[in-house]
Amino acid sequence: MSKQEVVALGRGAGDCGPGLLSTPLDEEQADSLAKVFKALGDPVRLRLLSMIASGAGGEVCVCDLTPAFDLSQPTISHHLKLLKQAGLIDSERRGTWVYYRLLPETTDRLAAILTRPAGAAS
Amino acid sequence: MSKQEVVALGRGAGDCGPGLLSTPLDEEQADSLAKVFKALGDPVRLRLLSMIASGAGGEVCVCDLTPAFDLSQPTISHHLKLLKQAGLIDSERRGTWVYYRLLPETTDRLAAILTRPAGAAS
Repeated sequence: MSKQEVVALGRGAGDCGPGLLSTPLDEEQADSLAKVFKALGDPVRLRLLSMIASGAGGEVCVCDLTPAFDLSQPTISHHLKLLKQAGLIDSERRGTWVYYRLLPETTDRLAAILTRPAGAAS
Repeated sequence: MSKQEVVALGRGAGDCGPGLLSTPLDEEQADSLAKVFKALGDPVRLRLLSMIASGAGGEVCVCDLTPAFDLSQPTISHHLKLLKQAGLIDSERRGTWVYYRLLPETTDRLAAILTRPAGAAS
């Protein structure tokens, strides 16, 4: 599923230039993009994403994420699953623990989509 | 309310560099930022925002937005209100109609927040 989202996002930005601020989105583009923004529309998920993105070595063990929140392990896992489904992070199980890392392609595409086209009035 | 959001967003980006991908967000930053991403986390609102942002002359009459959707005028107005509360658009009433325009400061800040710090591994 995360791959689908990333591909769909690519249609909104990529070679044709930023999509959101230069051309009206069609329904399909808006549906795909809304899923990613919805994943970002929660303070716990934003904190998780920022912890993962700024983690030393480019990855963070779930065992280091959970203690930062006053939430249960299943709740944290659910938020991480939504970030992963949106194509924002990836995970790898090694032994007992799962390690998470940022998928910068997705945040790069969102940044491009939110960047005004050159020559736009401010 | 929109001004508060914009100010809060400023703390996450602005002079101190991008916030989301370089440093773990604190709870207050995450709360403010989540509200803006939540406003973007809906396909109708994304289409409205893209229509407003790409409108000729930098603004769009609500009378030109509503016919593009199979939704009632009050529903469209509600979505526009949420975009306005998030600091993404502003509005001005002139005669019978309300005109909407993008607040590019907010999308600029979101783009900065989603941009990887210089030197980050890809």
